[in-house]
Amino acid sequence: MKLNIALLAGDGIGPEVIDQAVKVSNAVAKKYNHEISWSPALTGAAAIDAVGEPYPDETHAVCEAADAVLFGAIGHPKFDNDPSAKVRPEQGLLKMRQKLGLFANVRPTFTFPSLIDKSPLKRERIEGTDLIILRELTGGIYFGKRGREDNGDTAYDTCTYTRAEIQRLAKKGFEMAMSRSKKLCCVDKANVLESSRLWRETVQAMEKDYPEVTVTYEFVDAVAMRLVQWPNSYDVMITENLFGDILTDEASVISGSMGLMPSASVGTKTKLYEPIHGSYPQAAGKDIANPLATVLSAAMMFEDFNLKEEAQAIRDVVNKSLSEGVVTEDLAEGGKSYKTSELGDWLAKNI
Amino acid sequence: MKLNIALLAGDGIGPEVIDQAVKVSNAVAKKYNHEISWSPALTGAAAIDAVGEPYPDETHAVCEAADAVLFGAIGHPKFDNDPSAKVRPEQGLLKMRQKLGLFANVRPTFTFPSLIDKSPLKRERIEGTDLIILRELTGGIYFGKRGREDNGDTAYDTCTYTRAEIQRLAKKGFEMAMSRSKKLCCVDKANVLESSRLWRETVQAMEKDYPEVTVTYEFVDAVAMRLVQWPNSYDVMITENLFGDILTDEASVISGSMGLMPSASVGTKTKLYEPIHGSYPQAAGKDIANPLATVLSAAMMFEDFNLKEEAQAIRDVVNKSLSEGVVTEDLAEGGKSYKTSELGDWLAKNI
Ligand SMILES: CC(C)[C@H](C(=O)O)[C@@H](O)C(=O)O
Ligand SMILES: CC(C)[C@H](C(=O)O)[C@@H](O)C(=O)O
Repeated sequence: MKLNIALLAGDGIGPEVIDQAVKVSNAVAKKYNHEISWSPALTGAAAIDAVGEPYPDETHAVCEAADAVLFGAIGHPKFDNDPSAKVRPEQGLLKMRQKLGLFANVRPTFTFPSLIDKSPLKRERIEGTDLIILRELTGGIYFGKRGREDNGDTAYDTCTYTRAEIQRLAKKGFEMAMSRSKKLCCVDKANVLESSRLWRETVQAMEKDYPEVTVTYEFVDAVAMRLVQWPNSYDVMITENLFGDILTDEASVISGSMGLMPSASVGTKTKLYEPIHGSYPQAAGKDIANPLATVLSAAMMFEDFNLKEEAQAIRDVVNKSLSEGVVTEDLAEGGKSYKTSELGDWLAKNI
Repeated sequence: MKLNIALLAGDGIGPEVIDQAVKVSNAVAKKYNHEISWSPALTGAAAIDAVGEPYPDETHAVCEAADAVLFGAIGHPKFDNDPSAKVRPEQGLLKMRQKLGLFANVRPTFTFPSLIDKSPLKRERIEGTDLIILRELTGGIYFGKRGREDNGDTAYDTCTYTRAEIQRLAKKGFEMAMSRSKKLCCVDKANVLESSRLWRETVQAMEKDYPEVTVTYEFVDAVAMRLVQWPNSYDVMITENLFGDILTDEASVISGSMGLMPSASVGTKTKLYEPIHGSYPQAAGKDIANPLATVLSAAMMFEDFNLKEEAQAIRDVVNKSLSEGVVTEDLAEGGKSYKTSELGDWLAKNI
């Protein structure tokens, strides 16, 4: 197979972890006789510094021309505490999601047997957890009208959803539930928000098309609790953009494998793969970041190209590294640790 | 002291847990020579059933005339899955918060040494946790303009904040930080939301008035993670209404004492005290609910009347019940358990 992959390293540890995913993907390509051409492009603070724009048109063109996008991380602290900054790296991310039509973010949370004791949760709480949160990614309060009034003393944001937006996300949720254990949980705040009531109403109306799927409806605050108490009671969950942002991050740490969780964003045009962790600026340039989430994101990419063996080869080598203790310092527990680049080399060699 | 307390039992297990708080408060009043007159009033689904309104005017009058309000829980499942219901119990709660000017919800999360092993988190993660979330309670997306367009196919909600609303909440946060360890964390989503940028800007401008307080700013998604990882790294946190809803519920379960966490809502007029748990309809009428959160809410009430010894007497008897295993079935671990009413009697007797 010939693949053209857009490579958006972004900020902070982004470039370092992306490098390892490239090494591993190239090793897979070599072994299975594929040809990958990588098309690097600027994004985030790095793009602002270079061309004044966090998601430049050239980058968009590169993504549109590519078969898929591999993404690192975005965000830089120099923008965070400056509420008046006119251009922010995150705007690039949001623009990219919207322009590429990436309306669904697929975030699995699962456990690695060898890492289960790293979880902040007790073993019996987390064992067997294998859930997927499908987060709506191009609507809601992220993209609604916002602004200031009263000379800047009043600020507002608008959360808007259309039935069609909810349907296309929910459809993916139902399909995913059908391919797994046929359980779907719709997370909303329908006891307060009108947009949530539209979510609930829309999903309820779709239930008849998937008679085998058992659908439950839970409030976001209750889910924030139960995710900590009984994460293994969940399977496929669907939710709107902001709730998804909060819950996927919460879910990501319960497995003890925060640095390891991959994600895919899918939609109308291309697909994008990225680690769920952030740009972790404190670690940038130190060659200490854990690249496994990005490497596993590449595995999701191969899987979606229907290259199942290739995807499995990546997951196997990741498991191997974990069980043999070939890990970065975050997982080393005072034992021997490997540099980001060393781990990437090891993984590539062992493919 | 003569106290007139409005008693809003509400729905589900509300009436049962409220009863025990009344018993314990009466025992305290007797011991310390106070006189409490209780003024019961209707709220929630119970009020809808009785008078068609979840927060009737008569109830508001009772609350306004009272020195404080003791509240049970609100909500009934028959309304949750009916997005078209015109009157909902929760509307009563929101109306009450707004009409009573309860702009700050104070929710502590702490651990009981005897319950620490009930936490879903490992002991070393949760030990020493003692944090307070101050949630803004009468603004934001809970009270903004909402509605439908396009024949019902589009729904929207608006999140609005004014500088003044943020200042009065933040002021309480700074003051609380001064009375504790002088650490304040402002939780927002300033990398996306304009209202969050106003929060951050407003709190930043107040820092100079509290030079001893160390203020940090964190994104809500990051906090949702860190609350599970290192809850004991937090002290006083301030946040807007919806984020507060999600984070306080998340925080409530990490201590393993979900049924035990009290809360106070304070503001411009009266103060209201309530357990943070919900109406738990499955348990209603069975005399099995854990009343301790409501009892501890009564302790917060005595504390705020500057009756410190009285408050401590309640907390002491709660600790005594826990360490002697006089507990409801949720905490009994297969051992002997007490009914809700039996526990209330025991507590009152041991004051
Ligand atoms: C950086 C930020 C804008 C982004 C979001 O809120 O969507 C991030 O938290 C994420 O989840 O990808
Ligand atoms: C019942 C509901 C409207 C309410 C809220 O969201 O504020 C509840 O969850 C709470 O936290 O008191």
